[in-house]
Amino acid sequence: MPTNLAKESAACAAVNEQIHNNVRIIGIGSGSTIIPAVKRIAEIVQKDNLDLICVPTSLQARELILSNGLKLSSLVEHQELDLAIDGADEIDEQFNCIKGGGGCHTQEKLVAFCSKKFIVVADEKKWSKRLGNTWTKGIPIEVIPIAYKITKKEIEKQLGGEVIVREGTEKLGPVLTDQGNFILDWKFDASKISNWSDINQTLKMIPGVVETGLFVNMIYKVYLGNSEGKVEVKTNPAISS
Amino acid sequence: MPTNLAKESAACAAVNEQIHNNVRIIGIGSGSTIIPAVKRIAEIVQKDNLDLICVPTSLQARELILSNGLKLSSLVEHQELDLAIDGADEIDEQFNCIKGGGGCHTQEKLVAFCSKKFIVVADEKKWSKRLGNTWTKGIPIEVIPIAYKITKKEIEKQLGGEVIVREGTEKLGPVLTDQGNFILDWKFDASKISNWSDINQTLKMIPGVVETGLFVNMIYKVYLGNSEGKVEVKTNPAISS
Repeated sequence: MPTNLAKESAACAAVNEQIHNNVRIIGIGSGSTIIPAVKRIAEIVQKDNLDLICVPTSLQARELILSNGLKLSSLVEHQELDLAIDGADEIDEQFNCIKGGGGCHTQEKLVAFCSKKFIVVADEKKWSKRLGNTWTKGIPIEVIPIAYKITKKEIEKQLGGEVIVREGTEKLGPVLTDQGNFILDWKFDASKISNWSDINQTLKMIPGVVETGLFVNMIYKVYLGNSEGKVEVKTNPAISS
Repeated sequence: MPTNLAKESAACAAVNEQIHNNVRIIGIGSGSTIIPAVKRIAEIVQKDNLDLICVPTSLQARELILSNGLKLSSLVEHQELDLAIDGADEIDEQFNCIKGGGGCHTQEKLVAFCSKKFIVVADEKKWSKRLGNTWTKGIPIEVIPIAYKITKKEIEKQLGGEVIVREGTEKLGPVLTDQGNFILDWKFDASKISNWSDINQTLKMIPGVVETGLFVNMIYKVYLGNSEGKVEVKTNPAISS
């Protein structure tokens, strides 16, 4: 499967470069790209006998850490992480990204926020000139359950576009996040948006909104894999190492 | 008890003036001042045979609505309310207020946000020249549980002061909100703050923060009772009826 090779190559390149003796505490992202990343982390930890502590961003990440024999911790024990490795649904040329296709963006943003470096690994198809060009499912927004209709209405009123309440395929009614909240997906007209920081602020300030899946200029490096297994690394000039 | 007379007088004056035939859907706040307000609403509804729908801001408000024989609904059925009646911990001369001493400010803000008029009833001692003069327990901030240490650290870093994790008197560990989250109380130096809108935005933009207990210029009218049962009404010139 060429997509898997792209993801795996990106994940392994990032881990090989970023995991070493000076890294003690890392954040583990969520999603399909993180599976090979955690596997590779576990190999390096064992080979080099590293004392590495892992902070998960989801129940999935927690399981991955444990099943790969890594040391599990949390944001209660550690509020400063050396780095976080995560996937993304789309990354633009200004190093903004959309996350939350898997519904884990609230914890993912928290962990990224606490990390000295936020590293993204992805298939090169996730890189785009402008957010919304390739990821057409909208910006994921976690909201408290009683607020889902108000927040949907208010987002459409303030920002236009269309808000979809995310439904589960295997359950009746809205999907629940790890926090027990709902997810809205805000479909927007990409051509009308220039300032993602303003959009993020407008969304988060709406009562009932817990967190948005917009990560504005948080990325330090992106590792992009292609279907042939080649990896390109892009470094955000706005963030120093 | 003079405090009760102050609260009761304010609550009854507000209800007598605000509840009438043209009001169909109201938000019911939380706290001790709301108990006499709901009792009085029930009397008027019965006397005038009104068809009034009540939207609660907490489990306490829900119980009050039901035990007083009023019609219960929610923000899922109604996203536009005619008015909301609620208490406050402190109200300043610019009609900003602090709420959340009882830990219900997230739903209270949602309901106030959805209401055409937000009415506050309180003991006159809650009125002050500047927020923080009389309410010394700090600004309540609801945060997701895993984020409580990060948010505490980040608030102190960005805004100074001291953040206390609210502990329960009857349970071990932090108090839980109706959403299952934690509450931080941010103690600030009142003399250093002039723009509450900026403070509210700074707080809410921190990852992990669900909602603040700062209600910036949301109040339409305040009914202030004193220990002799007299009520003063103040109308916010910045909000039209």
